[in-house]
Amino acid sequence: MSVGIVKGFPSTSGDDYQLNIITFLKCAANTYPEVEVISRNIDGSIFRYNYYEAFQRVKKLANALVKLGVKPGDRVGIAEWNTHRFFELYFAISGIGAVALELNPRIAGIDRAYVINHAEAKFIFVAETLLPIIEPIADDLNTVQSYVVITDKKSRDLKTDLAPVKSYEDILEQEPDSYDFPMIDETSAFAACYTSGTTGKPKGVFVSHRAMYLHTIMISGMSKMGLDDVVMQTVPMFHAQGWGVFLCAPLVGAKLVFSGMYTAETTHVLVDLMVSEKVTVNNGAPAIYMPMLEQIRSMPEKPVFPNLRMFSGATEPPLAMMKGYDELGGNIIHAYGATETTPLVTVNLLKAQMADLSEDEKWELRKKQGLPVTGIEMKVVDAEGKDIPHDGETVGELLIKGPWITTTYYNDSRSADSFTDGYWKSGDAATIDKNGYIKISDRFKDLVKSGGEWISSIDLENSIMAHKCVLEATVAGLPHPKWEERPLALVKLKEKYIGKVTKQDILNFISPNFAKWQLPMRLFL
Amino acid sequence: MSVGIVKGFPSTSGDDYQLNIITFLKCAANTYPEVEVISRNIDGSIFRYNYYEAFQRVKKLANALVKLGVKPGDRVGIAEWNTHRFFELYFAISGIGAVALELNPRIAGIDRAYVINHAEAKFIFVAETLLPIIEPIADDLNTVQSYVVITDKKSRDLKTDLAPVKSYEDILEQEPDSYDFPMIDETSAFAACYTSGTTGKPKGVFVSHRAMYLHTIMISGMSKMGLDDVVMQTVPMFHAQGWGVFLCAPLVGAKLVFSGMYTAETTHVLVDLMVSEKVTVNNGAPAIYMPMLEQIRSMPEKPVFPNLRMFSGATEPPLAMMKGYDELGGNIIHAYGATETTPLVTVNLLKAQMADLSEDEKWELRKKQGLPVTGIEMKVVDAEGKDIPHDGETVGELLIKGPWITTTYYNDSRSADSFTDGYWKSGDAATIDKNGYIKISDRFKDLVKSGGEWISSIDLENSIMAHKCVLEATVAGLPHPKWEERPLALVKLKEKYIGKVTKQDILNFISPNFAKWQLPMRLFL
Repeated sequence: MSVGIVKGFPSTSGDDYQLNIITFLKCAANTYPEVEVISRNIDGSIFRYNYYEAFQRVKKLANALVKLGVKPGDRVGIAEWNTHRFFELYFAISGIGAVALELNPRIAGIDRAYVINHAEAKFIFVAETLLPIIEPIADDLNTVQSYVVITDKKSRDLKTDLAPVKSYEDILEQEPDSYDFPMIDETSAFAACYTSGTTGKPKGVFVSHRAMYLHTIMISGMSKMGLDDVVMQTVPMFHAQGWGVFLCAPLVGAKLVFSGMYTAETTHVLVDLMVSEKVTVNNGAPAIYMPMLEQIRSMPEKPVFPNLRMFSGATEPPLAMMKGYDELGGNIIHAYGATETTPLVTVNLLKAQMADLSEDEKWELRKKQGLPVTGIEMKVVDAEGKDIPHDGETVGELLIKGPWITTTYYNDSRSADSFTDGYWKSGDAATIDKNGYIKISDRFKDLVKSGGEWISSIDLENSIMAHKCVLEATVAGLPHPKWEERPLALVKLKEKYIGKVTKQDILNFISPNFAKWQLPMRLFL
Repeated sequence: MSVGIVKGFPSTSGDDYQLNIITFLKCAANTYPEVEVISRNIDGSIFRYNYYEAFQRVKKLANALVKLGVKPGDRVGIAEWNTHRFFELYFAISGIGAVALELNPRIAGIDRAYVINHAEAKFIFVAETLLPIIEPIADDLNTVQSYVVITDKKSRDLKTDLAPVKSYEDILEQEPDSYDFPMIDETSAFAACYTSGTTGKPKGVFVSHRAMYLHTIMISGMSKMGLDDVVMQTVPMFHAQGWGVFLCAPLVGAKLVFSGMYTAETTHVLVDLMVSEKVTVNNGAPAIYMPMLEQIRSMPEKPVFPNLRMFSGATEPPLAMMKGYDELGGNIIHAYGATETTPLVTVNLLKAQMADLSEDEKWELRKKQGLPVTGIEMKVVDAEGKDIPHDGETVGELLIKGPWITTTYYNDSRSADSFTDGYWKSGDAATIDKNGYIKISDRFKDLVKSGGEWISSIDLENSIMAHKCVLEATVAGLPHPKWEERPLALVKLKEKYIGKVTKQDILNFISPNFAKWQLPMRLFL
């Protein structure tokens, strides 16, 4: 118990009963056993089962994990798309007291190796299609003892250099479908997600069972999710646990749809799922929702989506996009959060008194990040730490505190810069209007936001300046119609090298340190 | 930390951030300051303010409580109807770490004195209209130091024998409207409610902040409450915290309506409020909803209630009542719980596959207690403790466990009979059908359910048998069209007294021990 917490009179409630994430699936398997969970396979076919069968497989997986040597507290890396197997892994790993470490396939290999080593992961589960992001770094992984490839194949049919290695279905096959999940101390980590920062290496956020549990019931409530919903997990599950949407569905007994692998170029697979599975709740970002809308518009028979709520994060939802979905019966709901906040902090819900606004004013309002979720303590402060007025104009930094907000980075000396008095310093510049709506106007931190991912401009600058011919470098986000922003680099060469070094030389020099999409779109010498 | 709880890897989440009930009002005052809270006064007039003003008054009240001498852990009794002041008391008392002790005006004075003494309450807040239930027992209260009368009046205008005594508005008047609420250990009691049992004296349930917080976010989510709702607190707030509905409203930013004082004879005041305030969420029992429906039907212009959800507890909702509200646009939703369960355990929601049922089958289904709320562990067991089949026919006892379920009675040797392995033994006989719907078919315990209140048949029997002329007595619940059940007593006199003792003699003999409505409706000698 922390200092300053007042002890009242003892209760007679079951306060020792720990908030464990496995509870959601256990309850769904009991109460909603017949409700479908569907998952799009790599080949486009659809895998279908239900909560009862999912829980049976999770129990088999729990036995398999134990046999593999996974112990409470161990970190288990997962590189996988949005599939039912990722779903099973989240429950089974956390159910036995271990930690699901989310591995983002989009970051540079050097950073991914850093994440795995920093978290000291002992086991890696990797999708067969993602072997190319793990194999090249395997030699650099200091703590990994064994690998499991997530695939339909048998172990003997695997083609990989990873070793020792087994296949997912192989390790499940012989296991019994009964497992008595222990009660896990709710302050234990449920999952870990590393976030990109301004100052280099990713920073570790270890989300507790308690935080995730509270977050899940809060967001499913705010979203009015219920057993009449069909919930699609579109945000990658390696991204702040996919906003926990795949946990909301079993909580409320809703049908759950996993999108499988997709890219910004193949969003038609998402549209197909929405139509065929009658999706009513979706989560994503404009970078995905925009091409989906175009796809829908090009369909010979335009579908209708009654009561569709599309939670949209990352960047401000464009007006045309909101109006486009509105015409189809859908509702784009802007929400705000970050890896450090599990992630939900604000949701844009329309207050009753907003009914008096004109249509245009309502659309303007809906572009804002919205209202804080109850339970969160939030303040927007000026440079002296004083609360800014609620005038919709004054800008301050958004600080956030609460039961599902991170209070430190794991084993990271940079924590001191990011947290103050229990608050996480978001680095986001925000205004609050007189009705309490938050609007993020800018980032204090120097990050370029590209397709929902962050690119550190400082990392790029430092990397370019490490070239012996470079005198100075500045990186900024250049507005981009599709990716929101792309990095632009302005480079000043040292006098004597002018004319002797090309743009391509610089790009070649820095490219080993970054993923391809993180490289500057334009570079001016 | 209890034995058997597995410790995983430490999280970086704000797990020390305690779940405190004051958070709901604090957040509402910040995010939904303008949303109305209205309260029906004794004279029928309506008091109106908003969440901002309510929180200001709660801060004044917190200062007043401290001045009065209330300390963390102290129990503060409240005898009040559903009003904004009861609302303020719940927040201010729990906000400073003390416990709101709910005083049911409907139980016998001797039991009320027992409750206050057993809980060792130091302070009593009593509505002016309820002075007659406190004044007669004041001499028997061992721990009470002072009284506050809940009224608009000044202290000097009070007419009461209670001493020392002040008026509610007097103690608030001079206090500042700022108070820095401390963080309270979430396992501290938020409120205490005593429940009638089979074996005599009421039993103390001390609900923690944590249990109440979790319960509130779960039930508001399951009820899909939102900022577009108008929530009326109809279930008495001295009854299992009024099912916590008055906490859901600030949580989601909904307008909140307090019904004030009403009886089964004056339910028209509830109908008037529903119409004038456009209520969309209500909670109550058939004993109240039935006369309300009659009232609505007799109105010259039949009102329409779009999206009205009426949560109905205590007894099975009659078909005619459900159909009657359905015609008005309202939806009766049967829910089940008890004081020991904070109270929500099951809610009757319609699963998707139920769409195939005939209309008649759907109505039958809706009479059941419904599906367990996620987070609750429930089992229905036979006499040997084995799970019964889900066949809708086999009857077993319902056992309940979870984060908001009581695990012991406060300082009560009878706890051993009511709890087993962390489960509360409900005493309710239930079936589960193949779709997971629970139906309570009977009580194992011998209680008569009258208008939503329990009457202990064993207490009545014991009391009657204490009469020197009585040989034997049996009390049972007699079905009653209005009150669901009324107690019926069968009394066998000792041979030599037959013809010498009248029914009235027996009733007179037992009446000091019971409230008037608890007395047998019929008594056969």
